[in-house]
Amino acid sequence: MQFHHHGYVSGDPRVRPAAGTGVDRPVDLPDEIDVLIVGSGPAGMLLAAQLSEYPDVTTRLIERRDGRLVLGQADGIQPRSVETFQAFGFAERIVAEAYNIGWMNFWGPDPERPQNIVRTARTEDYALAISEFPHLIVNQARVLDYFAEAAATGPGRIVPDYGVEFLGLTVHADGAYPVEVRLRYTAGERDGEERTIRAKYVAGCDGARSRVREAIGRVHVGGSSAHAWGVMDVLVNTDFPDWRTKCAINAEAGNILLIPREGGYLCRVYVDLGEVAADDDHRVRATPVEEVITRANAILHPYALDVKQVAWSSVYEVGHRVTDGFDDVDEGTDASPRVFLTGDACHTHSAKAGQGMNVSMQDGFNLGWKLGSVLTGLSPASLLSTYSAERRPVAQQLIDFDREWSSLMARKPEEISDPQELATFYLGTAEFPSGFMTQYGPSPIVGASTHQALAAGFPIGKRLKSSEVVRVADGNAVHLGHHARADGRWRLYAFADAPAAGAASALSRWAEWLGTADASPVRRFTPAGADLDALFDVKVVYQQPHEQIDVLAAPALFRPESGPLRLADWEKVFAAAPSAWTTTDIFDERELSRGGVVVVVRPDQYVAHVLPLEATDELAAFFEGVFLPR
Amino acid sequence: MQFHHHGYVSGDPRVRPAAGTGVDRPVDLPDEIDVLIVGSGPAGMLLAAQLSEYPDVTTRLIERRDGRLVLGQADGIQPRSVETFQAFGFAERIVAEAYNIGWMNFWGPDPERPQNIVRTARTEDYALAISEFPHLIVNQARVLDYFAEAAATGPGRIVPDYGVEFLGLTVHADGAYPVEVRLRYTAGERDGEERTIRAKYVAGCDGARSRVREAIGRVHVGGSSAHAWGVMDVLVNTDFPDWRTKCAINAEAGNILLIPREGGYLCRVYVDLGEVAADDDHRVRATPVEEVITRANAILHPYALDVKQVAWSSVYEVGHRVTDGFDDVDEGTDASPRVFLTGDACHTHSAKAGQGMNVSMQDGFNLGWKLGSVLTGLSPASLLSTYSAERRPVAQQLIDFDREWSSLMARKPEEISDPQELATFYLGTAEFPSGFMTQYGPSPIVGASTHQALAAGFPIGKRLKSSEVVRVADGNAVHLGHHARADGRWRLYAFADAPAAGAASALSRWAEWLGTADASPVRRFTPAGADLDALFDVKVVYQQPHEQIDVLAAPALFRPESGPLRLADWEKVFAAAPSAWTTTDIFDERELSRGGVVVVVRPDQYVAHVLPLEATDELAAFFEGVFLPR
Repeated sequence: MQFHHHGYVSGDPRVRPAAGTGVDRPVDLPDEIDVLIVGSGPAGMLLAAQLSEYPDVTTRLIERRDGRLVLGQADGIQPRSVETFQAFGFAERIVAEAYNIGWMNFWGPDPERPQNIVRTARTEDYALAISEFPHLIVNQARVLDYFAEAAATGPGRIVPDYGVEFLGLTVHADGAYPVEVRLRYTAGERDGEERTIRAKYVAGCDGARSRVREAIGRVHVGGSSAHAWGVMDVLVNTDFPDWRTKCAINAEAGNILLIPREGGYLCRVYVDLGEVAADDDHRVRATPVEEVITRANAILHPYALDVKQVAWSSVYEVGHRVTDGFDDVDEGTDASPRVFLTGDACHTHSAKAGQGMNVSMQDGFNLGWKLGSVLTGLSPASLLSTYSAERRPVAQQLIDFDREWSSLMARKPEEISDPQELATFYLGTAEFPSGFMTQYGPSPIVGASTHQALAAGFPIGKRLKSSEVVRVADGNAVHLGHHARADGRWRLYAFADAPAAGAASALSRWAEWLGTADASPVRRFTPAGADLDALFDVKVVYQQPHEQIDVLAAPALFRPESGPLRLADWEKVFAAAPSAWTTTDIFDERELSRGGVVVVVRPDQYVAHVLPLEATDELAAFFEGVFLPR
Repeated sequence: MQFHHHGYVSGDPRVRPAAGTGVDRPVDLPDEIDVLIVGSGPAGMLLAAQLSEYPDVTTRLIERRDGRLVLGQADGIQPRSVETFQAFGFAERIVAEAYNIGWMNFWGPDPERPQNIVRTARTEDYALAISEFPHLIVNQARVLDYFAEAAATGPGRIVPDYGVEFLGLTVHADGAYPVEVRLRYTAGERDGEERTIRAKYVAGCDGARSRVREAIGRVHVGGSSAHAWGVMDVLVNTDFPDWRTKCAINAEAGNILLIPREGGYLCRVYVDLGEVAADDDHRVRATPVEEVITRANAILHPYALDVKQVAWSSVYEVGHRVTDGFDDVDEGTDASPRVFLTGDACHTHSAKAGQGMNVSMQDGFNLGWKLGSVLTGLSPASLLSTYSAERRPVAQQLIDFDREWSSLMARKPEEISDPQELATFYLGTAEFPSGFMTQYGPSPIVGASTHQALAAGFPIGKRLKSSEVVRVADGNAVHLGHHARADGRWRLYAFADAPAAGAASALSRWAEWLGTADASPVRRFTPAGADLDALFDVKVVYQQPHEQIDVLAAPALFRPESGPLRLADWEKVFAAAPSAWTTTDIFDERELSRGGVVVVVRPDQYVAHVLPLEATDELAAFFEGVFLPR
C-alpha cells in the first residue's frame, strides 16, 4: 500500500482524498450524468468502485431496494475474485472472515445398504494448488459492502442511490447525453415520483429479469431445464460428519450440494427437488422450506439435520441463457455502444458451480476502465465495443461448463458408473471454476502472440498470474501482481536482460526510449501536466539478487516523481533472484526470456502483449490502438 | 472468525451485539464507574478494547487531548504485538498497511575516506525467522485507531471520553467505589469545569509525566543520560541507497537510526545530537528541526536528504527509569491494589529499540483480563497483585536491554572495533526485541515446571508460540494459537495420547472428568446458566491425520452448544498429522509428549501450566488459585 506521497496521512490510508466530482457530490441524482449504473449487485458495485477512481466522471448507481442487500444470493468466491478484491484493497479483510474451501468430499449410496449414504471420495480443492489466493465462501452482501466501501472512499466518493427504480430508456442519435432514462423513486420522500435524467452511458447490472435488457431489445437465449432445486442458508445441529466440508451428495433419494459458510456455523444447502413436470408453470417455486428440509433429511439418511434457524431460502429452476449481445449495438455496425449489460442481465445459469457472482464481477472489471478511459478522453469510443466482444464468449463458456456440471450433479446414483467421476471432473476442470480460463482473443487491446515464447508463463489474453519477486528498496519478498491496484492504469513490466542496473543494456535502451522518444506511448498519451506514471505504471525486474541492485542506478523512468511534493517512487524496481525471504525466481517460474521481455498488462489485470525489449515500434503501434494522441 | 451462532449476522461480523453496559451507554461520564482508564496511549486503548469484552463492567477512558492522536510517537511493532493484534481481530489489516522490516543494514565510515559512509553489514531481520508474524513499522495513531475500533465494536461499546484531564485521586479505605478521582474538562461545553467521580479501579496510562503515578506517590527511579537525539518523520528525496531499509549509521559526524515508515515514502530518522552539557537544563530540547536536518546530512555524507515535508519532529534525552512499584500497594502488604500504572507511566527508555509501545501494550493485556475477572466476580481481588509482580521485572529487563542497545548505537566509530558487532548484538538478542523473552515466574496464575518436559516447546510462563494444525471439521490448516481471541477466556489445549477419537484413552478419561467431575474447574467455576465454554475454551489435538478423525466421536466437551440456538461448535477438534495443506506436526514442532499433555493458557496468551492428562487433581488445585467457587 503506497500513501503519504501527497503529504502526511494520519488516518486510514484506504480513505483517499475526494477529488473532482467526489468533492461536494450532490445527494440528489443530477439531471445529466456520465454513467448510470442500474443495480447494486456484484457487477454494478464493482463498476461503482472502479469508476470512483475516475473522479472527473460523474457516476451514479441506482438500486430499487431501499438499502443494502441483507440476505441470500451468491456466496462462492473464486481465487480470481480474491485477486480482484486485492486490487480493490480488501482481500485480506474478506479472507479473514470467509470460509476457506480446502476440500470437496463426495457421498453416494452405501453399496451394502443403498438407502444410506457413505463418503466415496475426498478431493483437495483446486484453488490452493493453482493460485496464491484461496477459494472462499462468503455472503454476497459482504462482497457488496466491501465494494461499497471502496466506491465511497475512492476519489469519486460514489454512494448508491437506493430506492430508485429503472423504468426504461431511449438512446438518441445525438447530443452530449444521448441516453434518456426514465426512473421512479421507490422509497423516501419522493416515493412514487417518476423522473427523467440523461446519461452518456448506461450499465444494466439489474439481474436476470433486467429491464435494461428489455429496453434495448436484447433477448435472453436458452431455456430452463426441467430440474428444480431448493436452496437454504441454515443453522443446524447434525450428526452428518462432513457438515463443515463442501460436499456433493448423490443419494437414492436425490442430490445435495452442501456449502459450509463463513463464521463456523452456517451452511448453504442446495437440495435437488427433482424433475419438474412440463405443465408445472413454475409452481415448484412455491415449495415451502419445510419440504426442502424434509427432502434434505431423506437424502442425508442415516444422518439428520435439526434445523435451528433458516436464515434464507429460495427455490429455482435451472436455466441456461445467454443474451444475444451485451450492448445496444448490433454486430457488424460501426456505431459505439451506449448501453451495456453485465452479470445475470446477460447470462444466467445454475448457482451450483459457484460462478455467477465471479463472472459478473469480471464483467464489471472489464467494462469499468473502458468507460473511464473513454469518458476522460484518453481512448476512442470504439474501445467500448470490445466489452461485448470479450465478455460474450466468456459467458457462453460459463453456460457450457455449468450445463455439464449441473447435470452431473443432478444424476441418479444408477447413472454413475465410477464414484470418482464427479471428483475427476471437478479436479480436471479446476482452472475454469477458479476463474483463470478466460482468454481474450486478439483485438485493439490484446496483441498477437508473435513473441509469446519470450514469456510463456504470461499467456497473452489471460490475467497476469502473479509471482514473487524481491522489492529492491526494502529487500522484502512481494507478489509482483499485488502491486497493481485497480486504478485504471496500464502496467508495463520490463524484465531486464543480464547486465546490471546502470550498465548499457537492452533494458536501459528500452527505458531511454520510453522516457524520451517522441514515439513513446508514455510521452504521447500521458496527459499534459500529469505525473509521469499517471497513465502507465512502469516497473523493472532485474535478474540479479536484490543486494546487487542499486535502485538509484536504474533508469529515471523507474523512479518517477509524483504529487505536489514531487517525491520519488522507490517501489518500481524489483529483483528476480531468490533471497532470504523467497525461493522463487520469476524468470524461471513464468518462463521468461533471460534476454529480457516486456509484458503489457491492462487495467483489469489481463496480459495485453508480450514484446522483446527491442520491439519499440510494435509497442508504440499497439498503444495507438488504445489511446488517442494528446 | 466464528459468528452466526446467536443467529444470522448480515453485516460486518467484527461488530458484535452490544450487551450489558454497552446497551444505551451514557455519553457523559457517570458518577460511579468500575474502571477509569487515564490516557489513550497503547496501554490504555488496549485496556479499553479488552474491557469491552466484559460488558457487565462499566469502563471509561479519559484523555486530556480533545480527539484522536494525529501525529508522531511510537512506530515499532514487534511480532508479539502483531500476535496481540490478531487476538483483537485486526492483524491482517494493520499488516496490509504497515512497513514490513525484512532487513537491517549497518553503515560506518569508509576506511579510505572516513568522512564518507559505506555499508558495512546487512542482516536479515529477526522476526521473519522466529515468528509467523512480521516485524512492522506503523504509526502509533493507527494502532490506537484499531484498538479504538475494537473497543467501540465490542459488547461494551467503549469510546474514549476525550477532553477530560486527570487532576488527582484519593483511595479511601472502604466503600463500593473507593477511589475518588478529581477531573477537569479541557474541551467542549464544560471546558474548565472540575468534577469528582468514584471508581473501583484506576489505570494510569498517562505517560512519562504520569499524574496518576504522582497521585499514588510512586517514584520514577533512574535518570537521563547525557545524550540527546532529534527525531523526525520526513518526506524526502535522497540519493542514499538504503533509504527504504532500516539502517543503523555510525559516522564520524554522529549516528542515525533510520526507520522507513508505512506507505513507501515516509521515513523516521533518529539523529544523534551528541553529549549534552551538565548545565544544559534541557535546552537541547529546543533544537530546531532545521538543525536536526543539517546534522543528518552531515552524518549521511556523501549522501544528502532533500526534505520536502517534516510531518513531525521532536528532541529527547535518553532516560532510563522504572517506577518503584506498578500499583498503589507497598510490597509486603496484604492489601489489594486499586490503582495501577502501565507503559511510560512506569518505565521510560530510549525509543530506538522499538520497544516502548509493545511493552506498554503487554502491560495493558496483562492487566485487562485480571480486572475483568475480578470485577465480574470470577476471581479474588488478590489476582490484581500479580500485575505489578509480573510486569515490573519485564520493565527492568527492558531498561537493561535498551541501555545496552542505545549506548551501542551512540558510540563513536573509533569505539567500534568490529564493524559486525552491532549486527551481531542485534541478531543475538533477537528474541528480546521480538517480544518473546518475557517469562513470568511461578505464582497463583503460573504453575510449577514439574511437567515441563511433556511440552518442552511451550515453556511455562512464556506466551504460547502457535503452530499449525489441521481443523478436522473442514480440513483446513490453521494456526492453533490464532483461534484464541482476546475474550478473557482461559484455554485448555488437550494434546491426545495415541488412541483414536472415541476410543478409550487418557484423553477421553480427562475429558470425562473435566465435563462431569465435581472437582472439575469447568463445573466448579463456570457461572450458572452460562455456556459450557464461557470460562474455559477447551480444545483437543489428536495425533491422527484429519481424515481419520470424526469430530462427532470426540468427547462432547469438545462440541459445546452455545447461544440462544444451542448450536454445536465444530471448531475445537484438531489433527496434528501433516496433510495436503501443511507439513507441520505440532507434536514434533513443540516437542509434545505422544502420551498426551494438557497445556493451560491464560487469557493474555501466556502458558500457565503443563500437566499430564492424568493430573486432574493438580489441574483442579491450580484453578482454585485462580477462580472463586461459584
